[in-house]
Amino acid sequence: MTAVSRVLIANRGEIALRVLRACREAGLGTVAVHSKADAGARWVRLADSSVHIGGSPAAKSYLDADAVLAAARATGADAVHPGYGFLSENAEFARRVAAAGLVFVGPPPEVIERMGDKAAARRTAEQAGVAVVPGSGPVTDLDQARRAADRIGFPLLVKAAAGGGGRGIRPVEDSDQLARVLPTAQAEAQAAFGDGTVYLERALTRARHVEVQVLADGHGNAVHVFERDCSVQRRRQKLLEEAPAPHLDPRVREEMCAAAARLAAHVGYRGAGTVEFLLDEDGSFYFMEMNTRIQVEHPVTECVTGVDLVAEQLRVARGEPLSVRQDDIRPAGAAVEVRINAEDPEGGFVPVPGDLARFDLPGGPGVRVDTGFVAGDRISPFYDSLIAKLVCWGADREQALARADQALAELRVEGVPTAAALYRRMLASPEVRKGAVHTRWLEEWLAT
Amino acid sequence: MTAVSRVLIANRGEIALRVLRACREAGLGTVAVHSKADAGARWVRLADSSVHIGGSPAAKSYLDADAVLAAARATGADAVHPGYGFLSENAEFARRVAAAGLVFVGPPPEVIERMGDKAAARRTAEQAGVAVVPGSGPVTDLDQARRAADRIGFPLLVKAAAGGGGRGIRPVEDSDQLARVLPTAQAEAQAAFGDGTVYLERALTRARHVEVQVLADGHGNAVHVFERDCSVQRRRQKLLEEAPAPHLDPRVREEMCAAAARLAAHVGYRGAGTVEFLLDEDGSFYFMEMNTRIQVEHPVTECVTGVDLVAEQLRVARGEPLSVRQDDIRPAGAAVEVRINAEDPEGGFVPVPGDLARFDLPGGPGVRVDTGFVAGDRISPFYDSLIAKLVCWGADREQALARADQALAELRVEGVPTAAALYRRMLASPEVRKGAVHTRWLEEWLAT
Repeated sequence: MTAVSRVLIANRGEIALRVLRACREAGLGTVAVHSKADAGARWVRLADSSVHIGGSPAAKSYLDADAVLAAARATGADAVHPGYGFLSENAEFARRVAAAGLVFVGPPPEVIERMGDKAAARRTAEQAGVAVVPGSGPVTDLDQARRAADRIGFPLLVKAAAGGGGRGIRPVEDSDQLARVLPTAQAEAQAAFGDGTVYLERALTRARHVEVQVLADGHGNAVHVFERDCSVQRRRQKLLEEAPAPHLDPRVREEMCAAAARLAAHVGYRGAGTVEFLLDEDGSFYFMEMNTRIQVEHPVTECVTGVDLVAEQLRVARGEPLSVRQDDIRPAGAAVEVRINAEDPEGGFVPVPGDLARFDLPGGPGVRVDTGFVAGDRISPFYDSLIAKLVCWGADREQALARADQALAELRVEGVPTAAALYRRMLASPEVRKGAVHTRWLEEWLAT
Repeated sequence: MTAVSRVLIANRGEIALRVLRACREAGLGTVAVHSKADAGARWVRLADSSVHIGGSPAAKSYLDADAVLAAARATGADAVHPGYGFLSENAEFARRVAAAGLVFVGPPPEVIERMGDKAAARRTAEQAGVAVVPGSGPVTDLDQARRAADRIGFPLLVKAAAGGGGRGIRPVEDSDQLARVLPTAQAEAQAAFGDGTVYLERALTRARHVEVQVLADGHGNAVHVFERDCSVQRRRQKLLEEAPAPHLDPRVREEMCAAAARLAAHVGYRGAGTVEFLLDEDGSFYFMEMNTRIQVEHPVTECVTGVDLVAEQLRVARGEPLSVRQDDIRPAGAAVEVRINAEDPEGGFVPVPGDLARFDLPGGPGVRVDTGFVAGDRISPFYDSLIAKLVCWGADREQALARADQALAELRVEGVPTAAALYRRMLASPEVRKGAVHTRWLEEWLAT
């Protein structure tokens, strides 16, 4: 057991408050860190103490490892929860946290590193007996890329090895386009991730994005917490997530979930992580990547299983075993999450910062709202535009979708535009109602 | 099957919105009725249509059966949901709804009548083989009362036969006090309920209030949806409710729940109802009364069972069978509800109407908020002072209580006082933490 009594939350917004809530329930003290723009924010006020760590741009605050570590020292925190984004998948930061004698709430740095390198992650998955999307190792020149492409077949994707979360990916339709895209993709990967390595992967154009939540405690217990379907995406950004994946063949579910747990055990995983798969129309599924952190869409899993994923992260960080065994985890009903961003759905979904003049939340049975904001708060231009997540559970998928529609009708946001009305049309579409979507569906639907 | 397509909601506040949500999910149209004070209220705006039925005092609007029925006719509603309070246990209203060719969402009028007469309800319970608190039939004079008291023993309660919900009850410690109280109680009962009939009942001073939710469909399916513990009361008004009842002997739970379902079947119940019991320290339980409507605290049952009680009410009203059989109902985890009222806990809990200048709601895992209001709304002096119900589910009771504490910390109400801070102290008390409270506990605790 590792003594943890005070957790520094190295994040902001809804996930900072989510972590704070879990710390409170676990009887742990909380330290918020915040930028200039976030002074006085809700999660900062609710924390036991807070530290102003720097300027409004994330690079000067939430991404500044020195400032975060100094805040931990100054407040006597003995653990750091990184949330998602920012420093959450930065192995070097995880190492520095440990070197400072603090507990990093996440997997070991070498696991972050290994799964963060997308090419290495593919090799690891294969070693664990998990199929990967047909693709190549790192390609450095056009000749090598063309040989790989001949084997894989078009259409394909050029992916940055250091990318992730939908970033650093370029679709390629044919050999000529490959020649044009390759040098650009390499230069972009170098600029965006500090690593120009790219590789090729078959583009599965009608596949679904199905991901499996895993938990592992380092005491030999690595479990899956079933799957989420996040196929409704726009430019690889998830808009609508649900659990369970609709119409998933029980045999495929079982194999996919087992594969994810096997991979977690294979890499010596600790804490909460997500193994993302592409599910092809023929029921084949392929490893895409593993996210070594809590995910934005984790609440849908919590709603159908009753497992508190952040509480389990904290348990594992303290060296305790998971509170659940595989057989204890029995999903019930269905849950759907919609992300409410400050954005203009009529104007290419461009973020629109501003003040939350009104912010009336939905409620009632099955409705969970995760937000870091209250009425009067400013949605800042410095960070992502997420205002709130509406997570709706129902005894079945139809009820969950009906509750999501009603929650969107009740939600009232003034001061910034949101896609709430668009979501209601999306929920009413035959494809979403039937659960018959794939990762390209939303863009096609928006274009009609 | 009875055609129902548009439901008039003859209520206000959170329960009006609760019913509206269930109607939406069931694909039913909604009609809100409202008083002058409630023009523009949230549940009115969210309804498909609305009718201003009269002045602000409830007697001129929500209690005006003529006005409600006229609104139903004018809007083409084919069913009336009475919520709780107001006309919900008025058998004459239920009869008039039916006579107007509309569906009353509740049990048959004769059942409302029979269970509404507390003395008749006791006889009915006995016929169904359900033990009642030792007590008398109607007593009309002091001699008769004294003979009954000798048999029952002191302390006892003088109860109005037409009372309910904690109203019309007077504690009596000895024979002298009985002589003083009896005429007053008779006069008060006559004034308050239009019926001066009173009866005596043994006062169980260290008993718990445990009630069982029932559902029946008139197709031979009468089930229980397990129990709630509502022992934390002040002047017989519930403040804190939870499910399941802590430390309840499984055998007692089984017997109590079976007794409630048996009583529902015996009286030909239809819809949702609650059978209230007093659970004595020795594990004996006694029927107190049956509420023939949805209850304020119904969400804790929904949270632990996943059964949508209002949706079941609507199904039954349409003549459909319940969606669940007894064996389908399996409680999981624990839930606690706290009622946030506009009241002054330092000043005898007197209601304090006013404007909700701020109204920031809690959220996150396990937290459900039921409220009819948004920031800027007025909490009117004309109606009860309930602003919101915070309902917190946890995988176990400890987690549910921790989440309730955190929800109270996050709740921010400005413009009217609330007992939120008092609730936090109450949740932290050893008695509540241990689940070792009884119906007199809160008053004793407040007095310390």
